[in-house]
Amino acid sequence: MRDVRAGIVVTGTEVLGGLIRDANGPWLSEQLRAHGVTASHIIVVGDRPDDLRSALEFLRDTDLIVTSGGLGPTADDLTAEVVASWAGTTMELDPALEERIWAIVNRLRRRVGGEEEPMRAGARKQAHVPVGATVLEPAGTAPGLLVGSEPLIAVLPGPPRELQTMWEEAVKTEPLASLLASAGTLERRILRFFPLSEPQIAATLRELDADARPLEITTCLRRGELEVATVYPPDAAGAYAEFEAELRARHGDVLFSDDGATIDEVIARLLEGRTIATAESCTGGLMAGRLTDRAGSSAYVLGGLVVYANEAKVALAGVPEELIVAHGAVSPEVARALAGGARERLGADLGIGITGIAGPGGVREVERHEEAHARGVRPRLRGAGRSGGVRP
Amino acid sequence: MRDVRAGIVVTGTEVLGGLIRDANGPWLSEQLRAHGVTASHIIVVGDRPDDLRSALEFLRDTDLIVTSGGLGPTADDLTAEVVASWAGTTMELDPALEERIWAIVNRLRRRVGGEEEPMRAGARKQAHVPVGATVLEPAGTAPGLLVGSEPLIAVLPGPPRELQTMWEEAVKTEPLASLLASAGTLERRILRFFPLSEPQIAATLRELDADARPLEITTCLRRGELEVATVYPPDAAGAYAEFEAELRARHGDVLFSDDGATIDEVIARLLEGRTIATAESCTGGLMAGRLTDRAGSSAYVLGGLVVYANEAKVALAGVPEELIVAHGAVSPEVARALAGGARERLGADLGIGITGIAGPGGVREVERHEEAHARGVRPRLRGAGRSGGVRP
Repeated sequence: MRDVRAGIVVTGTEVLGGLIRDANGPWLSEQLRAHGVTASHIIVVGDRPDDLRSALEFLRDTDLIVTSGGLGPTADDLTAEVVASWAGTTMELDPALEERIWAIVNRLRRRVGGEEEPMRAGARKQAHVPVGATVLEPAGTAPGLLVGSEPLIAVLPGPPRELQTMWEEAVKTEPLASLLASAGTLERRILRFFPLSEPQIAATLRELDADARPLEITTCLRRGELEVATVYPPDAAGAYAEFEAELRARHGDVLFSDDGATIDEVIARLLEGRTIATAESCTGGLMAGRLTDRAGSSAYVLGGLVVYANEAKVALAGVPEELIVAHGAVSPEVARALAGGARERLGADLGIGITGIAGPGGVREVERHEEAHARGVRPRLRGAGRSGGVRP
Repeated sequence: MRDVRAGIVVTGTEVLGGLIRDANGPWLSEQLRAHGVTASHIIVVGDRPDDLRSALEFLRDTDLIVTSGGLGPTADDLTAEVVASWAGTTMELDPALEERIWAIVNRLRRRVGGEEEPMRAGARKQAHVPVGATVLEPAGTAPGLLVGSEPLIAVLPGPPRELQTMWEEAVKTEPLASLLASAGTLERRILRFFPLSEPQIAATLRELDADARPLEITTCLRRGELEVATVYPPDAAGAYAEFEAELRARHGDVLFSDDGATIDEVIARLLEGRTIATAESCTGGLMAGRLTDRAGSSAYVLGGLVVYANEAKVALAGVPEELIVAHGAVSPEVARALAGGARERLGADLGIGITGIAGPGGVREVERHEEAHARGVRPRLRGAGRSGGVRP
């Protein structure tokens, strides 16, 4: 077992320029960690050969470089070429690979159109691979590559689904399989708290002298939830257990997940054997969308109402008009009536009602608030200008 | 006017490890471009001093380094300290700043609790700044910094809203203001097409010899839409106009946005003066949530129905039970009935009905499909296992 260090290079001017948000870097980093490999950097570069080359050079002392993107048929897709020249090899056409790629592209062409000749030229471009590289079969149209050694470079496509599919193959393929097998293992445990502020957890970690422990501890506040993620080698398991016990002693009352489960998973578990329905105003369907986003949610989500206009609150969710007049649409009373309306109209065991101010950022505020409710499966109302209710 | 090059460093083990997806790097890159500054790399590093230092070193030849994150009160927040030592200066306590930070933290403490002494220690840690640095006032609890020169380092907090607020101040503050003023300008134009495949656009760009033009052209397929983004200096405006005209000649029939507008914005414009309502099965509220996500959407979105269960389709959206029995829940007929039900129940001018298979990835498929419908504001049905309808 040895310390294997890796670097990740994400290519694409569209990623660098903010047109799309990179999902591959963090995903690869987590996959590497699961194989006991620490990624030191994720570098995003545009489709400029010099910038890609300098990123590779920066990572020269690592054991493994994983790249994503730049394997498409367009001229700005130049990862394979740059990697080849950086690794001291040249490109050559793999004719059998060209036929396999063309078969895929031609199927697409028959479906959505396009002229044969230039598309065939694109397939040929994609079938050029570095001499001596191991080819990973396309998950879309682009083949992946394993190139060189010390560092080994794994060249993967940019579309996340293609990359993830190909990764499963890549880790079983030599020489990547051997490199990963030589690494040790790294555990990661995640504790999730709500509500807990960053200054509070900072104070706790200072008191616990967390810095002096053989653990890599990270804290992160996202969507109102505070996460404490700890990475450690197996021989520090005792140190971690001690640390977790001490954290529990101080903040166990606001700890809602200790097994990595997200709030969505926690809620899904709580809903087992019950049914739920929603009536949303300002969140406009996002709560229903989030609930149904999970596989298997049809077992407990019956449906929901999006009652943006006050008329819809009355007509669809059965909120009494007088209630809106008396308390305003944004009030605990109307939220409760929405929850009740959702429950009744859809015949569910539980109803969620959400009303609030939908301003910039406001929707997310309410969403968080409601999640907290759902956790306790009982109403807990607070905050000005937004209200929610759960009707059990 | 000169060529100003920048690099972006995003810190945080939670970002590197995939616990959160970085929004700051791409956002900063786009802001820089709007100021005529090209970002060559975005580097994501964990909270390890050596890795942060090597990222700074890698960007030494740029004019500007912008960092995000690592300014919090916890011990793993070490950006300011590492930047100071890399820039050849030391840290000192700014007592007045400490009091301003403590005032913010203490307000938080009164609201959510925590002991005074360790939290005060956190505020003191955050008030340590590099000697000679310009302090940017906290947008949350963390101050930002402008440190050194050649490269100038702008040190900003990690939470996106804090970072974005502080950025507005930073660009008006010396010496960053002068540096940005010295840069030229870079235009970016975005054309969006649907449906158009990547091999097709690759073929077109090859035929147009796009590579030989003084334009940085990037193509990107996301959520089924194909984007062609082009960045160029003002003196290449003519070359761009020519390129755009040639693209239009070939793919003008599937060009749906030529002014940077997203499909959401295009739909919002089309809905001016009309009202709309949704009835969703497999997308479970995501369409309503996406429609209402836009400021001002209350002018045209009346509401929606999430009818996940077949019973709900009948009871809430008025879909005849016989129709479901005869054609199945996933059928054009039921989609049309859902659209009609949404329109009638909510008294809207337009109704959208969505039904389909909610498998992994399936929901997104349907979502895209529906967007295409909405664009034409008339039904266009195709694909197996999913159906949608718009009822005008």
